[in-house]
Amino acid sequence: MYNLLKGKKGIIFGALNEHSIAWKVAERAHEEGAEFVLTNAPIAMRMGELNSLAEKTGSQVIAADATSLEDLTNLVEKSMEILGGKIDFVLHSIGMSVNVRKGKHYTDSNYDFTTKGWDVSAVSFHKTMNVLYNKKAMNDWGSIVALTYMAAQRVFPDYNDMADNKAYLESIARSFGYFFGRDQKVRVNTISQSPTPTTAGSGVKGFDGFLAYADQMSPLGNATALECADYTISLFSDLTKKVTLQNLFHDGGFSNMGVSDAVMSKFVDGK
Amino acid sequence: MYNLLKGKKGIIFGALNEHSIAWKVAERAHEEGAEFVLTNAPIAMRMGELNSLAEKTGSQVIAADATSLEDLTNLVEKSMEILGGKIDFVLHSIGMSVNVRKGKHYTDSNYDFTTKGWDVSAVSFHKTMNVLYNKKAMNDWGSIVALTYMAAQRVFPDYNDMADNKAYLESIARSFGYFFGRDQKVRVNTISQSPTPTTAGSGVKGFDGFLAYADQMSPLGNATALECADYTISLFSDLTKKVTLQNLFHDGGFSNMGVSDAVMSKFVDGK
Amino acid sequence: MYNLLKGKKGIIFGALNEHSIAWKVAERAHEEGAEFVLTNAPIAMRMGELNSLAEKTGSQVIAADATSLEDLTNLVEKSMEILGGKIDFVLHSIGMSVNVRKGKHYTDSNYDFTTKGWDVSAVSFHKTMNVLYNKKAMNDWGSIVALTYMAAQRVFPDYNDMADNKAYLESIARSFGYFFGRDQKVRVNTISQSPTPTTAGSGVKGFDGFLAYADQMSPLGNATALECADYTISLFSDLTKKVTLQNLFHDGGFSNMGVSDAVMSKFVDGK
Amino acid sequence: MYNLLKGKKGIIFGALNEHSIAWKVAERAHEEGAEFVLTNAPIAMRMGELNSLAEKTGSQVIAADATSLEDLTNLVEKSMEILGGKIDFVLHSIGMSVNVRKGKHYTDSNYDFTTKGWDVSAVSFHKTMNVLYNKKAMNDWGSIVALTYMAAQRVFPDYNDMADNKAYLESIARSFGYFFGRDQKVRVNTISQSPTPTTAGSGVKGFDGFLAYADQMSPLGNATALECADYTISLFSDLTKKVTLQNLFHDGGFSNMGVSDAVMSKFVDGK
Repeated sequence: MYNLLKGKKGIIFGALNEHSIAWKVAERAHEEGAEFVLTNAPIAMRMGELNSLAEKTGSQVIAADATSLEDLTNLVEKSMEILGGKIDFVLHSIGMSVNVRKGKHYTDSNYDFTTKGWDVSAVSFHKTMNVLYNKKAMNDWGSIVALTYMAAQRVFPDYNDMADNKAYLESIARSFGYFFGRDQKVRVNTISQSPTPTTAGSGVKGFDGFLAYADQMSPLGNATALECADYTISLFSDLTKKVTLQNLFHDGGFSNMGVSDAVMSKFVDGK
Repeated sequence: MYNLLKGKKGIIFGALNEHSIAWKVAERAHEEGAEFVLTNAPIAMRMGELNSLAEKTGSQVIAADATSLEDLTNLVEKSMEILGGKIDFVLHSIGMSVNVRKGKHYTDSNYDFTTKGWDVSAVSFHKTMNVLYNKKAMNDWGSIVALTYMAAQRVFPDYNDMADNKAYLESIARSFGYFFGRDQKVRVNTISQSPTPTTAGSGVKGFDGFLAYADQMSPLGNATALECADYTISLFSDLTKKVTLQNLFHDGGFSNMGVSDAVMSKFVDGK
Repeated sequence: MYNLLKGKKGIIFGALNEHSIAWKVAERAHEEGAEFVLTNAPIAMRMGELNSLAEKTGSQVIAADATSLEDLTNLVEKSMEILGGKIDFVLHSIGMSVNVRKGKHYTDSNYDFTTKGWDVSAVSFHKTMNVLYNKKAMNDWGSIVALTYMAAQRVFPDYNDMADNKAYLESIARSFGYFFGRDQKVRVNTISQSPTPTTAGSGVKGFDGFLAYADQMSPLGNATALECADYTISLFSDLTKKVTLQNLFHDGGFSNMGVSDAVMSKFVDGK
Repeated sequence: MYNLLKGKKGIIFGALNEHSIAWKVAERAHEEGAEFVLTNAPIAMRMGELNSLAEKTGSQVIAADATSLEDLTNLVEKSMEILGGKIDFVLHSIGMSVNVRKGKHYTDSNYDFTTKGWDVSAVSFHKTMNVLYNKKAMNDWGSIVALTYMAAQRVFPDYNDMADNKAYLESIARSFGYFFGRDQKVRVNTISQSPTPTTAGSGVKGFDGFLAYADQMSPLGNATALECADYTISLFSDLTKKVTLQNLFHDGGFSNMGVSDAVMSKFVDGK
């Protein structure tokens, strides 16, 4: 619509289906003139409909297990070949807790599950940047964004070990972002998005009630996946070149609310 | 009980009646072996029962309008005379919004009211430290504490301009705390307390419902006035000499909650 | 360049000369297709060159003392007449400490100066939103931005009472932003910008050394006034509709640095 | 000195030698009337002098690998036997980065090293609380404290993956602290301590320069290990019953400084 990403090249991780934020980012990036490669884990690709998105956006798909340096190296090398140059933007939208999937309560974690979820959800971001940085695969003033959630700062009981994984992910953004900024003029940020009814989000227990709570707490209501994609585009564009190491809340104001009138109305009688 | 403040001398602002946090601090400081002067605004003293507290704790009372440098100068000078030396600890527990009292909504402030409330609730803390600092009235490793509320960080709609006043107050703690630390080895902190049913707190609209909400959100429940006094004693003691410029949440965990199971239970049906 | 603000109408406070961030915002907003009114205090307009900016951007200028509700009411009414409708974006870029100008140290404030600086730098933002809100002068999904500085969170000794003013300003953004969001779908945010060599910034003592320090601490270096204008455009655009109540650091990463290698190199010998 | 911990029973992890913070905590807890068990990894015990501390404080030592649920279960069970009841306080002072030890730069991590360091430094805290919680081994109003460092919030380039580990650790404190508070009235906090010349701290590259930098940035100077022990005692005492889920900076004010005059003096000429 604005040509904000005209001539820019990217890699987008994590589109599964049309509910995915990464899916919306791909559609919007395409509209804004970008070229990009889509990637997801082999297993996710079997579940998803990535090829239809690829077709729609004129993109190629490269399968990669984001916990594998080998896969990531192949992804980055192939992407530069396909796109004909270095990368301008990367979206990391990957997260998964085996403890959540298997119904293990946070106070009774299975630590193999914990390790697996941490590797997929958080360390994968380090590995991705490791490959991009060491291969000098990013253009100057490139932009790397990972999606996160406010459970990294505050307690949401059902978020389980994803809270800790997101805290680790956000720390990686700062730690690696320093070196990426200093050495290669690349910015690294995380977007902390409203709860969003994606396939991943919907897996959390009591998700409908939680969506209602967040929506009523937020002066502008919950942010949608499409709105998140718009915001992501702004962070990939040249309008935000000096924004780095930040965790940016995109949540209708939720993060700075103590209580809203709407939520308070449930407690009027002091009970 | 522990002699934590044995030999220490202090000034305690803002005790009105037995519900006041400052009142509890005075009682606890007395138990811990401190000597201190009690002070409040002349008008508040007429409303309150400060003399009974003074008698109980062997203290003297000096009236002072905390917006008046002259009154504060007199207070500090007289306190050093009465206590026979420099001051080790100061509690600032003063806050008042004329807009709240007069029922002016935040979006329709009377700016004379705003200015008056800001002067009483926030600037008074600067003026108090101004006098203490310039008179070199504090002993090395002395401790200054002001009470605040989390509305300084997050929105609580009925808190009105007290939110902004508390933000200003907390900023003063940092700004003045730097110079007080660097030059006179004095620490300055704020305690951000749970909503507390004091005379001041109870004035806020819908306070009972709000207490219930905060209590259900906090894993340990709301902190009481007496518990706040205990915490304040720890900050006056020699156990916390290197804690400075901090805003310390004393709230049963509320400040780092996104949602609790108890609050969530009101939204189970997604409404 | 992108038509990001095509058809949007705004009010821009605080352009003084070509070094001003507000000046750059006006130029960039014009390039992006916006129409707007420029405003500044009568005294600032005499010092500045606002007419040349107005000519360049096809704008009209309306003088307004931002501490006067009457002037602000006139400004908003006239702006809607001139622009032919409601307002989509507002930039508040106003700040001034009389204590700094008069050389009063923070520990020895003149409280009349303090009050004047607070009124100009912080309360003016409340008054501006008061008029906009009560006149329902903003379009749905409008965007209000105020410029601030990180002294609101951390100590910069020479920033004096501007630190406290900025803390109050940021609190207003949250407090008023809640009602503006809930009732009129308008977002309110602050941008916390790198130290910038504007006419205002340059007045601070030791500013060159401070610029160097901030630049060496920031992985991407200090953000310029033009880069700040770009970022502001993104916040006025439709890409950021659900971002509200936020304080957004635009600072090359400074805000999340503990120390950089460049700064550390000054301390290599442990001295 | 004050009998603050009279009758209280505890477990102290991580004392290696007299420079350790945990060592100082043990000495101070003993002075305050507590009884406790000392524990460390078998390999650390061979390096250290834990038996002399045990003798001095009348404590018993139980070796435990804090990454082993089996060892931790044995530790907790034996501790309750030895101490004759449930536990009132626990100190977690464990941290180690294999990447740091082996000289791997953050941008070139060995991920086996990363996983090992994460398990030892962060997950060990989850495992410890897992055992304590599921065995209901803590008394009501017990207190659990872990030591951390501000690299969890801000970039310190040489801190390597310990930054991310500390972010994960602090998140565990919140996540587990919610359940521990709600279900067993136990509080969980982290203390974010000044850089301290312990055996662990000293291993970091350029540590002397870093100590000097932190000391000059902090209005009260760096906090010592003994001062940290004093602060820890206050958090184990009954004075802080409603403080939970907090990360508490104990750092002479460093965490809220933007720049000090002392640090600024190195940049006076704008270079």
